[in-house]
Amino acid sequence: MTQRLVVIGGDAAGMTAASRAKRLRGDALDVVVLEQGRFTSYSACGIPYWVGGEVGSVDDLVVRSPEEHRRNGIDVRLDSRATGIDLDRCEVAVDGSDPVGFDQLLIATGATPIRPPLPGLDAPNVHGVQTLTDGARLIDGLSDEPGRAVVIGAGYIGIEMAEALVRRRYDVTVVDKGAQPMSTLDADLGALVAGAMEGLGIDVECDTAVESLDLDPAGRVTAVRAGGRSYPADLVVLGIGVRPAAEIAAEAGLPRGDRGGIRVNARMEVADGVYAAGDCVESWDRVAQRWVHVPLGTHANKQGLVAGLRIAGVDAEFPGILKTAISKVCDLEVARTGLGSDEAAELGYDVVAATIETTTQAGYMPDARPMTVKLLADRPTGRLLGAQFVGREGSAIRIDTCATALWAGLTVHEVMMSDLGYAPPFSSVWDPVQVAARKVVEQL
Amino acid sequence: MTQRLVVIGGDAAGMTAASRAKRLRGDALDVVVLEQGRFTSYSACGIPYWVGGEVGSVDDLVVRSPEEHRRNGIDVRLDSRATGIDLDRCEVAVDGSDPVGFDQLLIATGATPIRPPLPGLDAPNVHGVQTLTDGARLIDGLSDEPGRAVVIGAGYIGIEMAEALVRRRYDVTVVDKGAQPMSTLDADLGALVAGAMEGLGIDVECDTAVESLDLDPAGRVTAVRAGGRSYPADLVVLGIGVRPAAEIAAEAGLPRGDRGGIRVNARMEVADGVYAAGDCVESWDRVAQRWVHVPLGTHANKQGLVAGLRIAGVDAEFPGILKTAISKVCDLEVARTGLGSDEAAELGYDVVAATIETTTQAGYMPDARPMTVKLLADRPTGRLLGAQFVGREGSAIRIDTCATALWAGLTVHEVMMSDLGYAPPFSSVWDPVQVAARKVVEQL
Repeated sequence: MTQRLVVIGGDAAGMTAASRAKRLRGDALDVVVLEQGRFTSYSACGIPYWVGGEVGSVDDLVVRSPEEHRRNGIDVRLDSRATGIDLDRCEVAVDGSDPVGFDQLLIATGATPIRPPLPGLDAPNVHGVQTLTDGARLIDGLSDEPGRAVVIGAGYIGIEMAEALVRRRYDVTVVDKGAQPMSTLDADLGALVAGAMEGLGIDVECDTAVESLDLDPAGRVTAVRAGGRSYPADLVVLGIGVRPAAEIAAEAGLPRGDRGGIRVNARMEVADGVYAAGDCVESWDRVAQRWVHVPLGTHANKQGLVAGLRIAGVDAEFPGILKTAISKVCDLEVARTGLGSDEAAELGYDVVAATIETTTQAGYMPDARPMTVKLLADRPTGRLLGAQFVGREGSAIRIDTCATALWAGLTVHEVMMSDLGYAPPFSSVWDPVQVAARKVVEQL
Repeated sequence: MTQRLVVIGGDAAGMTAASRAKRLRGDALDVVVLEQGRFTSYSACGIPYWVGGEVGSVDDLVVRSPEEHRRNGIDVRLDSRATGIDLDRCEVAVDGSDPVGFDQLLIATGATPIRPPLPGLDAPNVHGVQTLTDGARLIDGLSDEPGRAVVIGAGYIGIEMAEALVRRRYDVTVVDKGAQPMSTLDADLGALVAGAMEGLGIDVECDTAVESLDLDPAGRVTAVRAGGRSYPADLVVLGIGVRPAAEIAAEAGLPRGDRGGIRVNARMEVADGVYAAGDCVESWDRVAQRWVHVPLGTHANKQGLVAGLRIAGVDAEFPGILKTAISKVCDLEVARTGLGSDEAAELGYDVVAATIETTTQAGYMPDARPMTVKLLADRPTGRLLGAQFVGREGSAIRIDTCATALWAGLTVHEVMMSDLGYAPPFSSVWDPVQVAARKVVEQL
């Protein structure tokens, strides 16, 4: 008998699961996707490059359109906002339509930008950058005249948006209540990021909380008041981060964790026949050994794959995350994985850290550029705990070496002696990661 | 009582060991280094970039000069060729000097270029590129006029030299008896390298064995005869590879392996009080589980460190290698680690391989460039066996991710689900390594 899978949310996690389950179960499974917007399977991470003009068209950011999914037999319903889940009746209520019954349900509702409780934050010139619709609205609001923009929040997305707006000839101020940009980096490396932003002409205001917004009679923001000062603004971007869009799950009585996300097991199950995946769930941090909320397309895709496989009866598990992140910020590349110094200390680790200043190629090569590498290890065991990179082109991708070492539970001594590639256009004869590892080993 | 360490060979392995042992044992250890040339601690891997003009001066390639080592209390003796080791008397014979007695000995004699038994190969315009002296002699022999060069051997060094000579406005032919350039790559990826070389105007002649050299009355080579054809040459470079310079060890009765290198244990010991390290030794291939000869500065440095620590009484072991290699070849980046298809088959593995064509950044980014990734795994266990990359800028350094996975014995499933960095300027949302791993997983 044909069963029906209902998927709430048509982006990375939802469509990956829908596609995989449909492909494996074929006519035995009807797949209905309820998407509140107009796009499916898109790269929200690409929005800053679209805003900045490096990516020409919204179509470039769409991996698979609703029409393409429909051709694969998936019933994609756009402008369809799920408003409630009835687990007893196995039905999803839909705004303006009849409820949809399900045999299996996947909740992939994503995340919503955090909006501080400030009057005026719903003004038309205040922008989130979470969906393609957000991106399109922001681009529509850009002026060809030089203007002033305030970005609230100096995390990855805030900084990428600041750079995009500089490309659009805006004077940009970034305000953040933290002590430095990119709070997931240690302070010493965060300072390098602040320097690079300032080098691009971005005004970086840290330790600065937003207090209020000035509005004109038309209800548009004209200035952001923060840290006792006023920053004129033609455009405001919310880069504070996001929270899991888990209300619909919570209202249905499904479990949420401390970070507000839906609490799933490794098979992405929330309850019998009910799955959740993507930005709306919490993920298991393999290093910190606790649940965290890390909204990132890479996890959403893998979680969606696992959910889709399980829905099709195939064994699969999502093994957790390391909090790996990578970004290009102005002319700097930045990356991190695992624990930072503060978190490691908070977790009770006796941390040994080493920071080295090195170059992206052998020092004598003409294209060698500066790179800073920091590694953290656990003193009693020597086990790698985390890594951070800040440097010019060719720096950040090396985080994957450390992430893989961390994934496998290698010690810094193993990292130091492993067989990494060496040629002058890529590294010194002791690879930068290994130089840092050696410096940690010498302190153990 | 003061002991004496004698080191034969003053490059990477020898000087790393000498420096480490001296630093740890201080006045308790006299360190004498016998170096047959005039340089110490240099980057032979940088020679192609020096020849090509990217590196301006030989000094750039010298990490630490004899004078610097002497200031650290090491008795560096240049132009001192060791001619024999007397293990009973604990003495090293030196050409033109008195023998030098030792309490501990490190043999770090390096490697010598393979020279086919062809008359004329000692002509003044035939060049090895193994030492800085070789490099200096080659540069002295370069002409400002456009000339013709033949490079014998299409391995890493041969190809890097071919590119360097193109930069020097030479017409370059590379001849190799193998079916493709870079025999350590699978044929499909080797073909991409051949294409890139040809794109740079290099004449690539594979399946072509050198038969003889034409000499002028002054004894200079004028042409290379190979594969039944004649290739005019103002300059010939030997890029065939090297063999361990292990004669002096063998003559002293020390053990050599099948590949001709000195056979050491993980502590780099050959006999009681006698150590060997660097290009003159064989290394343990952790994947193939056999001894191999891989002359590379990165191994020499690590082996020298281990030897130096052991000589100073500190516990250390060299854990073996993966045959990781990386190179920039013309405008292509190339890298490999672990087993290739042929070797894996030869070793009896049931190999599952996947090759993907992808890009160095998210496909929609303007700077995304083509990249080919090939992964090999063992069918019954899913364990990663090897990886190969050929692509434009930003491709090859990713080999370190695979090398680390291989080092840790990860399966392709673990690689596929691990937490690698993702942002559009660095990868697609499924990292290229993970796309390839997933394609392997689907065939298991």
